[in-house]
Amino acid sequence: MGRVVIDVMPKPEILDPQGKAVVGALPRLGFDLFTSVRQGKRFELEVAGEVTPEVLAQARRAAETLLSNPVIEDVVSVREADPAEASA
Amino acid sequence: MGRVVIDVMPKPEILDPQGKAVVGALPRLGFDLFTSVRQGKRFELEVAGEVTPEVLAQARRAAETLLSNPVIEDVVSVREADPAEASA
Repeated sequence: MGRVVIDVMPKPEILDPQGKAVVGALPRLGFDLFTSVRQGKRFELEVAGEVTPEVLAQARRAAETLLSNPVIEDVVSVREADPAEASA
Repeated sequence: MGRVVIDVMPKPEILDPQGKAVVGALPRLGFDLFTSVRQGKRFELEVAGEVTPEVLAQARRAAETLLSNPVIEDVVSVREADPAEASA
């Protein structure tokens, strides 16, 4: 069973209110090292078989049409899940 | 300027209504290869200097307290951004 990871982030020029809220909250909780935060989305898509180039191509098309809004978001990456970073 | 990437996903045993909505919509749009989808969050935190072990340790503490709800979410990874996957 294969897994594809898709990362979607707000475009750099778009205001990211969730990220602004986080960067404002961090120092109040004692986390003082961070100057900027942006919050995006991570999708994990499972396929029955292997992650083939066809699977990755379909995942990219899905990412660019269903999973992101191209006006305000960028599809940052579409890749086979690295076993070290995948959730169970 | 360094950047830390934090990935947070719903725990496997927790219902993920956003993922369910996506997996229901995919075949209606012609994407027929995917059997399961889960949707989580991706954060990009910037620091003024290098990404040191201290920065990563503070990012992990922030991830586990502010950026995720440990009852329903797992912090999947806290790592220095790979230039190839980072947004601009």
